[in-house]
Amino acid sequence: MLSKNQQKFISSLALKKNREEQQCFVVEGVKPVDELLSSGWPVRSVAAVPEWLTAARKNRLEKSGVEFTEASAADLEKISQLKTANQVIAVAGIKPSSVPDLRSGFFIALDRINDPGNLGTIIRIADWFGLKGVICSPETADCFNSKVVQSTMGSLFRVPVIYQPLEELISQAASKNIPVYLADMDGTPLNEVKFGKTGILIMGSESHGVNDMLKSPQNKKITIPKAGNAESLNVAVAAGIICSRL
Amino acid sequence: MLSKNQQKFISSLALKKNREEQQCFVVEGVKPVDELLSSGWPVRSVAAVPEWLTAARKNRLEKSGVEFTEASAADLEKISQLKTANQVIAVAGIKPSSVPDLRSGFFIALDRINDPGNLGTIIRIADWFGLKGVICSPETADCFNSKVVQSTMGSLFRVPVIYQPLEELISQAASKNIPVYLADMDGTPLNEVKFGKTGILIMGSESHGVNDMLKSPQNKKITIPKAGNAESLNVAVAAGIICSRL
Repeated sequence: MLSKNQQKFISSLALKKNREEQQCFVVEGVKPVDELLSSGWPVRSVAAVPEWLTAARKNRLEKSGVEFTEASAADLEKISQLKTANQVIAVAGIKPSSVPDLRSGFFIALDRINDPGNLGTIIRIADWFGLKGVICSPETADCFNSKVVQSTMGSLFRVPVIYQPLEELISQAASKNIPVYLADMDGTPLNEVKFGKTGILIMGSESHGVNDMLKSPQNKKITIPKAGNAESLNVAVAAGIICSRL
Repeated sequence: MLSKNQQKFISSLALKKNREEQQCFVVEGVKPVDELLSSGWPVRSVAAVPEWLTAARKNRLEKSGVEFTEASAADLEKISQLKTANQVIAVAGIKPSSVPDLRSGFFIALDRINDPGNLGTIIRIADWFGLKGVICSPETADCFNSKVVQSTMGSLFRVPVIYQPLEELISQAASKNIPVYLADMDGTPLNEVKFGKTGILIMGSESHGVNDMLKSPQNKKITIPKAGNAESLNVAVAAGIICSRL
């Protein structure tokens, strides 16, 4: 049975300020929770319907010292942050990502991407293409927001996500001779760009593009050539197209 | 003033069966409605807050014989199908798309894509890359669903969207010697595929992939090479990556 206090605690994690205070966040759903449990991330607790709590899973949770509670579907529904509640909800600890070495490969940097679904999809793209990390401007959505967690499909547990002012990131890149690319409506066509082994790709929001402060002449503007009439592409789609050329 | 009957009518269009019966659908928001009005689509009525109804817009609506009503923000909120209600809501007529000639260029076909946001994003991708149409299996989400309309960002009014069993489409393609490509986890790497001037790209749902019935040996399976660990890509992102190579 999930106590009223446990329910209240899990529900409170819908707010960023509570996640920061408690240093934990919620992961919902069979696949995301299974990915969480195999990822080596700190897991604080699991609440699940009896069908999910198989002998094998109980054994695994006991071995790793994770507290678990049987809950009714109705109780999970009450605390779910998703439209359709799931069989299992876990509380995971926030593990601060340290900034990986910028010389280790490609990074994607996000300037004020505030749609959680787009952020999650981009973290998943970074995971697919083997990028070394996702660096978010402080105004970008919180990666521990439940919609982000959901749309990363487990990639959140594998790809470092760092929050840092992008001006800072760009000066670090400059000092290390790492090329910086900006996705822009008016730049070199993507197919003419030669990427090396390192680099940072900055994506701005669909409505505002990349912040002008980041558009220094050393940074290379790149454009996805257009053959039709749409005004823009969804930012996650654009990120996927560029990452597929790295 | 928006009458109770008008409010009831607009709200009823949230359901596909009412949209089909009435042969119309709802378009919300300043940009989508402006795109609708310039597109040549049949528009039945517009309800908007006074700020939206500028003299220029009133003039334009009158000239094109579109009925318009001033509404309060509170009334629009009541009938909005979006989380955040907007300044303007239009009712547009459903215009049946006729199937364009398959020899006219590239098409994207969707096998059971039921997430409205993904469908809308793919229609926008088709518009960006100048594809000739989006052909949806009957189980795919309805393109006149308000979330689809919203996420196409106006592209719905420019790209033909047709509902048709994909088995039928494939035999039409075969009879015209049009190549058919299937996005699959296990096919020729995208960068090794040589696309011609015509073709149909079939995308399946993320969880089920493309229906086995569509996987005949004449159809070419293609894969987006993976360098990392994610299990899959979002279907709209995958569609964008492949379309960027056409």
